Amino acid sequence: MTNNTDKPVTVIGLGLMGQALAGAFLKAGHPTTVWNRTTSKADQLVAGGARLAPTVGDALKAGFLTIICVTDYQAMYELLGASDIELDGTMLINLTSGSSAHAREAAHWAERHGAHYLDGAIMAIPPAIGTAEAVILHSGPQQDFEAHKSTLGALGTVTYLGADPGLASLYDVAGLAMMWSILNAWLQGTALLRTAGVDAATYAPFAQQIAAVVAEWLPGYAEQIDSGSFPAEVSALETDARAMAHLIEESEAVGVNAELPKLIKAMADRSIAAGHGGEQYPVLIEEFAKPRTD
Amino acid sequence: MTNNTDKPVTVIGLGLMGQALAGAFLKAGHPTTVWNRTTSKADQLVAGGARLAPTVGDALKAGFLTIICVTDYQAMYELLGASDIELDGTMLINLTSGSSAHAREAAHWAERHGAHYLDGAIMAIPPAIGTAEAVILHSGPQQDFEAHKSTLGALGTVTYLGADPGLASLYDVAGLAMMWSILNAWLQGTALLRTAGVDAATYAPFAQQIAAVVAEWLPGYAEQIDSGSFPAEVSALETDARAMAHLIEESEAVGVNAELPKLIKAMADRSIAAGHGGEQYPVLIEEFAKPRTD
Repeated sequence: MTNNTDKPVTVIGLGLMGQALAGAFLKAGHPTTVWNRTTSKADQLVAGGARLAPTVGDALKAGFLTIICVTDYQAMYELLGASDIELDGTMLINLTSGSSAHAREAAHWAERHGAHYLDGAIMAIPPAIGTAEAVILHSGPQQDFEAHKSTLGALGTVTYLGADPGLASLYDVAGLAMMWSILNAWLQGTALLRTAGVDAATYAPFAQQIAAVVAEWLPGYAEQIDSGSFPAEVSALETDARAMAHLIEESEAVGVNAELPKLIKAMADRSIAAGHGGEQYPVLIEEFAKPRTD
Repeated sequence: MTNNTDKPVTVIGLGLMGQALAGAFLKAGHPTTVWNRTTSKADQLVAGGARLAPTVGDALKAGFLTIICVTDYQAMYELLGASDIELDGTMLINLTSGSSAHAREAAHWAERHGAHYLDGAIMAIPPAIGTAEAVILHSGPQQDFEAHKSTLGALGTVTYLGADPGLASLYDVAGLAMMWSILNAWLQGTALLRTAGVDAATYAPFAQQIAAVVAEWLPGYAEQIDSGSFPAEVSALETDARAMAHLIEESEAVGVNAELPKLIKAMADRSIAAGHGGEQYPVLIEEFAKPRTD
């Protein structure tokens, strides 16, 4: 039985992220084979001990598992779909950015070619790869994830989400929506406070406290969503909507952007118009869950 | 020297919130005088030991401090501005909802009448008043806040923000923007994940983790804003914008609302168009800090 770090791995695609992934495997001691169309991108990795494979097919044969991290799913099909490539029995872990539909389609394609397939999403920037800060989400067959979990652990904090290969992409964009929303809400507040001479550093701890408090509510609010029942235990949506009007008025009065406040109120107003004014905030899931048609 | 809870207090305005405020003072042992236009709203408080003042003027004289919590600032002016009311030397703490401009105007008005004035904002629902969960923001002269801080402590967690009486209102709406934004981002993610059969309770802990991680970035990002320099230490805005496009595409592909994702990207696109694509996310403060004019 070999030590885990003896397991040979392959990384196909050496953009900034691919280079970081291969570098983390090398650092962890894995015999690492790399391939990139422009071979010069491999120079630093080869200097660090990586083997540059002459062909994609050769690269695939070298690794116990193969990470693919290329521009998009089409690029992956072009590389791995060539007639001389043998995918049968390989373990593909696709960390290329794409949608849940792309991931599910790729999983079917891999299955038809006899390959094991996990789809992944990297919630980190290249310099964080190889540290616990780099969260990498995986979805697909659990047995494939479990078989390679410790090897993948060289890349960061690896997480398994479920059998549906589209889950990694969905969690990824959901997490990004949370990230940008918190930053935007903080920018809105910072812009409001700066009109009174309060600097961003002074406001930031207050915003952090609110974020921490609100995050604690989510599991309880999730129960309302999962049960489909939204009693106004804390506050009714129509009460929230009046405070939303204050946020808009204040933003406009002090001359800052009011688009985010207006979107917040528009979503609530639509839910109130649909008869949910006496229910609690999570009832808005009904607005978020459907496309805007008018 | 009297024990702090011996200090008499007055509460004017007995809506749900005013009743909760007076109730908390009573519970803490303060001799509590109340006044409300509709006297029946005082029944329960009187049964609990409060004194119902026959007039606003009488109520004002009874308290070491007077809390005003009425419908809006106009209602406050109508009550306290009557010709027979003596405001000179009184301590007014106005917890009525309004804007920063309303608060500053009221502070000037109170000063002209010889009254001490603090403006406050209640970040809590009535049932939380009297517990540490009820955060009550105050702004105005610091010496007035310090003189009454321990008495106000009977109402919840009291916080002082600064001398500008508009600060309580500004922090209040800024905090609300954070609250709704986190909830909306979580609803967006929940809607996305539900299309793959993931329930809200399963997704909530993931959203909580992201919120905790992003909140940690705020002080560092605040330094960028306060220095007016936005080097792309972690990620450039144009890279974020590509991921924002994925969020929109994914939302539309699975049939959930894409308005929030589109607003996120529109703000970033505008900043990129203004030449900030190579800078870091907080550069968006320049978009948030100005009204949308086109």
